[in-house]
Amino acid sequence: MPERIAIFGGAGNMGRRTEAEARKQGHQIQIVDPRAEIQVDPEEAIAWATVLYFSLFAKDLIPVLDQYGRSIRLDQIVLENTSTKNPIINTLKGLDEMGISVCSVHPFAKHDQPPGGQKVVILPIGTNFNKAQIFAQEFYGNMGMIIIRHSIEDHDALMVPEQLPWHTANRAHLLTFIRLGYRFSQLWNLAPANTELGLASTARTGIQNPTISATIIFNYLKTAEGQAWKATYPRSLEEIFKAAEKGEETLAALLAQTNEYLKEDGMDQQMNEATTIILESNANLRLHSLTVHSLDNKPGVLAAIATIFAENGINLNAVGNRPPDGGVDIRFGIDKGTDEASINQAVIALRELGFEVIERHKEK
Amino acid sequence: MPERIAIFGGAGNMGRRTEAEARKQGHQIQIVDPRAEIQVDPEEAIAWATVLYFSLFAKDLIPVLDQYGRSIRLDQIVLENTSTKNPIINTLKGLDEMGISVCSVHPFAKHDQPPGGQKVVILPIGTNFNKAQIFAQEFYGNMGMIIIRHSIEDHDALMVPEQLPWHTANRAHLLTFIRLGYRFSQLWNLAPANTELGLASTARTGIQNPTISATIIFNYLKTAEGQAWKATYPRSLEEIFKAAEKGEETLAALLAQTNEYLKEDGMDQQMNEATTIILESNANLRLHSLTVHSLDNKPGVLAAIATIFAENGINLNAVGNRPPDGGVDIRFGIDKGTDEASINQAVIALRELGFEVIERHKEK
Repeated sequence: MPERIAIFGGAGNMGRRTEAEARKQGHQIQIVDPRAEIQVDPEEAIAWATVLYFSLFAKDLIPVLDQYGRSIRLDQIVLENTSTKNPIINTLKGLDEMGISVCSVHPFAKHDQPPGGQKVVILPIGTNFNKAQIFAQEFYGNMGMIIIRHSIEDHDALMVPEQLPWHTANRAHLLTFIRLGYRFSQLWNLAPANTELGLASTARTGIQNPTISATIIFNYLKTAEGQAWKATYPRSLEEIFKAAEKGEETLAALLAQTNEYLKEDGMDQQMNEATTIILESNANLRLHSLTVHSLDNKPGVLAAIATIFAENGINLNAVGNRPPDGGVDIRFGIDKGTDEASINQAVIALRELGFEVIERHKEK
Repeated sequence: MPERIAIFGGAGNMGRRTEAEARKQGHQIQIVDPRAEIQVDPEEAIAWATVLYFSLFAKDLIPVLDQYGRSIRLDQIVLENTSTKNPIINTLKGLDEMGISVCSVHPFAKHDQPPGGQKVVILPIGTNFNKAQIFAQEFYGNMGMIIIRHSIEDHDALMVPEQLPWHTANRAHLLTFIRLGYRFSQLWNLAPANTELGLASTARTGIQNPTISATIIFNYLKTAEGQAWKATYPRSLEEIFKAAEKGEETLAALLAQTNEYLKEDGMDQQMNEATTIILESNANLRLHSLTVHSLDNKPGVLAAIATIFAENGINLNAVGNRPPDGGVDIRFGIDKGTDEASINQAVIALRELGFEVIERHKEK
């Protein structure tokens, strides 16, 4: 059913993304945000809306709800998407106690990345959550997201090991590279496969808005789990340095504990498989590849391209794809030993069918 | 030209891998290793061989060369593949001074991962390296590896920022998870996309032989670059913790330096693109996918499969592949909204053509 959704903070990254998705699903939207082009009065937006969606940092959400909470009606739905929940639990429960249907959500998706296949945590509030939860599940389900239900009380404790180590350690890696004068491009270009993932993780964190990392680190460090992590991680590093001082064998014995740990639940094999798939296909696509861009992303595109490779006797060693808006890019790794004449024939045939083709040899 | 290669340490992981590749390239092999099934006398192996390949840890290589170095002839080639070079430079130069052609190599490939597209560093020794270097370039070039030439004197300094941060920090993450009682499977299953790469990097390090991490950490910490890293990284962490104590804004200002840093050389955009491709296709393959296994990996396989998807009107949102020994596995992400009847038809048609098909819905 189409709703009228007022998005508070709708001019932020996640807010704009939420607006786009809501419009795609046929809802009407008003944006309440000092940064927005068109300024809408918050009280008027609340009076107009059937759904109130708050896309704000925790520290901004509390004063907004303090100011406008009283204007929310019992027939309305309240959703909010902060990444840290402990600071706002009482405020959200206050709305529930007024009889309002409230559901907190935490979509695990970067604002500029397609949500399909990503996870969203759904956290019902108090006792009146039913209507809000159904709406949230439909909204994120339509986006192809994987829905995980959880209790809001446990959310931050659960998120600590998922977020704090990476935001803290990855930002510390970057600060260290700065202090020691290493160029990131140099590190990335020479990265062996097994550290490629580490540099990728570090960079992925480092390209996020620093306020996101700061909010996560600041809030999670205040929790008991965050304090335990803060006390333990530097001590684990120190333990490794101390063992290294005692000798290579002492160090190897300490590190063997971590190999044992990964055997639990068969994670060692699972992670070997998962990371090999990523690293292998990155490596093969790096060697010699053709990227074929199709304006259409519809059934038959891959068949048309693959048929041309087959007709020219070209064997592929990797396939990867990325759907840019509207079309599709498919990148094919070409077996070494494939003769250039066959590749040229295939490129000509693909271009005749209207595909754009980019050929890449070994990346520098 | 087929050579007679004696592989010292040939029963180890990298040694076995080197043996397999050498046999594939038509060389004759003898393995010298106390762990090998058939014991070959080292002196006899040296007398028989045209190429001596040492696949040993640095600490084992030195005594072996001390004992047998005198038996090596001027018409022989010496290669070795340790990951840390400083401890062995003098030993290798000693061989060169005797007039022997020596080339050190560092293949960036896990022993159980295909080498194609991975990098190999080629480090010529002294003045007689020519014959050994040509052989090394041919050997690794035939494996489809990307060859990077470098000076052995700079190797360890260069490898410090590529290896030490990841082996140390990732092992420290794992020790911390152990101490705090987090199950890795729980962390992995709930991982948001942006921390998925961090957990993947951590696990990738943690499934390596602990002796490899220990050797890297032990040797690199002794270098000037390693000491600088050891002094700086914990201080960077501490800097983040201190800034967090002062407040969220202070912390955000500190972290903003790391965002600025990634803008150098346009790495912010490049890394956003690179990591989005990985995360997106992982996410889409996680949602609803078919894995099609073909016994053959030859031109036409992808076309045959893609044609069946097209004939059933199935649009794909991701394609990924992995070549297991001999055949090929191609995994296709299926667009949500695709009706089950079309998928079933496609599965039947694929099985009729002799493909094995595994259907996966949302991963837990």
